[in-house]
Amino acid sequence: MVTKITLPETELPTHWYNIVPDLPVPPPPVLHPGTHQPVGPDDLAPLFPMDLILQEVSTERFVEIPEEVREVYRLWRPTPLYRAHNLEKLIDGPARIYYKYEGVSPAGSHKPNTAVAQAFYNAKAGVKKLSTETGAGQWGSALSFACALFGLDCEVFMVRSSYDQKPYRKAMIETWGATVHSSPSELTQAGRSILEGDPDTPGSLGIAISEAVEVAATDEDTKYSLGSVLNHVLMHQTVIGEETLKQLALVDETPDVLIGCAGGGSNFAGFSFPFVREKLAGTIDPVIRAVEPAAAPSLTRGSYQFDFGDTVGMTPLVKMHTLGHDFVPDPIHAGGLRYHGMAPLVSLLKQEGIIEAQALNQTDTFRRAVQFARAEGIIPGPEPTHAVASAMMEAERAKQAGEEKVIVFNLSGHGHFDMAAYQEYVGGSLADYEHPEERIAAAMERVPAVAG
Amino acid sequence: MVTKITLPETELPTHWYNIVPDLPVPPPPVLHPGTHQPVGPDDLAPLFPMDLILQEVSTERFVEIPEEVREVYRLWRPTPLYRAHNLEKLIDGPARIYYKYEGVSPAGSHKPNTAVAQAFYNAKAGVKKLSTETGAGQWGSALSFACALFGLDCEVFMVRSSYDQKPYRKAMIETWGATVHSSPSELTQAGRSILEGDPDTPGSLGIAISEAVEVAATDEDTKYSLGSVLNHVLMHQTVIGEETLKQLALVDETPDVLIGCAGGGSNFAGFSFPFVREKLAGTIDPVIRAVEPAAAPSLTRGSYQFDFGDTVGMTPLVKMHTLGHDFVPDPIHAGGLRYHGMAPLVSLLKQEGIIEAQALNQTDTFRRAVQFARAEGIIPGPEPTHAVASAMMEAERAKQAGEEKVIVFNLSGHGHFDMAAYQEYVGGSLADYEHPEERIAAAMERVPAVAG
Repeated sequence: MVTKITLPETELPTHWYNIVPDLPVPPPPVLHPGTHQPVGPDDLAPLFPMDLILQEVSTERFVEIPEEVREVYRLWRPTPLYRAHNLEKLIDGPARIYYKYEGVSPAGSHKPNTAVAQAFYNAKAGVKKLSTETGAGQWGSALSFACALFGLDCEVFMVRSSYDQKPYRKAMIETWGATVHSSPSELTQAGRSILEGDPDTPGSLGIAISEAVEVAATDEDTKYSLGSVLNHVLMHQTVIGEETLKQLALVDETPDVLIGCAGGGSNFAGFSFPFVREKLAGTIDPVIRAVEPAAAPSLTRGSYQFDFGDTVGMTPLVKMHTLGHDFVPDPIHAGGLRYHGMAPLVSLLKQEGIIEAQALNQTDTFRRAVQFARAEGIIPGPEPTHAVASAMMEAERAKQAGEEKVIVFNLSGHGHFDMAAYQEYVGGSLADYEHPEERIAAAMERVPAVAG
Repeated sequence: MVTKITLPETELPTHWYNIVPDLPVPPPPVLHPGTHQPVGPDDLAPLFPMDLILQEVSTERFVEIPEEVREVYRLWRPTPLYRAHNLEKLIDGPARIYYKYEGVSPAGSHKPNTAVAQAFYNAKAGVKKLSTETGAGQWGSALSFACALFGLDCEVFMVRSSYDQKPYRKAMIETWGATVHSSPSELTQAGRSILEGDPDTPGSLGIAISEAVEVAATDEDTKYSLGSVLNHVLMHQTVIGEETLKQLALVDETPDVLIGCAGGGSNFAGFSFPFVREKLAGTIDPVIRAVEPAAAPSLTRGSYQFDFGDTVGMTPLVKMHTLGHDFVPDPIHAGGLRYHGMAPLVSLLKQEGIIEAQALNQTDTFRRAVQFARAEGIIPGPEPTHAVASAMMEAERAKQAGEEKVIVFNLSGHGHFDMAAYQEYVGGSLADYEHPEERIAAAMERVPAVAG
């Protein structure tokens, strides 16, 4: 009975997959925040090195992974795909459940897949320092790890609610040599203006992005690095799905349901896009589901329209499912999912009906995650508790319907730095939040009207 | 350039290695704490199931691993052996450095290798509950994980200094369903008597063992489980060294120096005993080194004589390197190494000159560990920082001597639950402690005089 489906190191992907040429409709343009006209590569040059800008607008189906990046990937890749035998026993139904586990990376999540690539291209371009935002700290620690390997300085703006909840993520970031600030901070114009309006704000990814972008835009030696949302970031993550495709083939399985959690969309995209390719090619026909928190329900409750990627309005406008750029989600533990928008490519697939979406409450996801941890041994991060819970619910539905389904989900990271959340759950004090409809409606009124 | 040397799942060891038949001298007997006469299997029956007692006294060279245990091992085993290319570049010498990484287990260390085996044999014997001690929490979380898998209750006495330093280890233990107490506690006679004498004691492994043994000895449905020291525990860990032997063969390397940290001795033994076997057989001739903290220097400063395994004197007397059973080490972060004694089998090998030992200060080990983390990406637990530091010092000596050495060490666990220690190091507030010679001398005066 095989539990862990391992790929040999020789099967480490040689290329990232770019979904753009396979989309049923062309992706909408990215618009300048001031002029609302399409931006070109040069407009992005203050923030990103040219290699990454070209990847952002690439229409090549496959992009070669540099050997220097693959060399670092080999520290933890290929990652295992597990058959969840113990979880299946617990549910006692006909479904077969598999999970891809990205928690084996040094930073403990999928985030290093793009952090390493971004640090490599920036170092190659002679950049000295990267600035970035982080929610729960997964991205900030991944980028500080990658910067340590490629000799770059790194400055991280960490969303205040996570900064306060997760002091050890901060310690991890500092151990790898980066500096960390609580966001909003007094260090930027954006931060100061937010603090003036609401000194007690828990912060948000949108605010932290504004701060990090401002630092990069105003310092010549510093570029900006984003952990999700953008096309090139999602593309770097496709090593997850490419490996999973091969691993399922090794055990002769065809997936019926594929599930990933989604905040900005990078782990969901990295896991699912190679399967979307196969689905669009007609070789398989699975349900592909993004699971988001009820506290930040962009795909299930947001509007598909142009909006800023950050709170202050410094970034270009992108067409995506949005809750309004200044919507601040409640301080759930899944800090990596506390984002007002969704990656444009994921949004487009949802709009076209190629993928579906679901929103879950915090306590529901942790209840399942604890069951999962006791069955499978791995304690999921708060973000992938959403994927765990959705997969378990799917397996229970399959049991009731008597259907022999193959369910595959992405366990994008471990919860070692999120034990305060489990402590609250086990102690009975984990909070849920009211549905944020009114605050969404109010934030949507402040989104600029842009045609298209 | 191969970085990660992976064994296929088919190469998962089928047998544990028992070093006893290969020892140059027979191991001394284990003595009853009251009569000082050798104990037999029946004397141990209140504490352990018969399968484990028979393993404890076994003279079979290889003991088959039950398929139910191998099934769980497959969740994370075989574990990777890494070539530390980046660390080698940093040191810039001729040494080649490899490390075996046990941090990929669900609990984050080597401890589940024996926790799973012990939980299996106890469940098989119809035991309902296990009681145990834990220092840093590595062992407690490993046993709670294993108990969750085999449907056993679990009660953990956690050394107070770690209980206070590492709240998230406690949360992890509770997430897997076990209960945790700060030790010394008011729940046992042993705990109450210690608290009466010293209400502010930081606790010690020896005290926590007394409490856990008392619970098992006074409750029929409860057995006791120990995370180190005993022969069967060390034997379960030998999967580490057996895999490492095969992995080194895959890349055609012969080790010159093998290094592991040592508190009770289980990760050191598990890693090194298969190499000791080859050394005694004359096929290889490496230096084999146990590295301990200067705050608990049993192998380098202790006496080789009979002493209790616990503080109160409830356990049998074993011949080992000891600092005195009521010696309480300073509250270093490497809680798993805060033990007054050393496994009898490791002690015997040291006494016979087959292995060597070294003691290092806390700040020296963390300085190297931070360099290692920035080079290799993995943040070591406080215990294996001792192995990391010793390996780096060895590589630097090899550089000065111009020797092309092959250095292999065991990175027994990650430091995700020990970030407070790194926070202190990075912030400049990590403490070192005075050499504890006087307290050792005082404790040794209270060790009972036993011939042999």
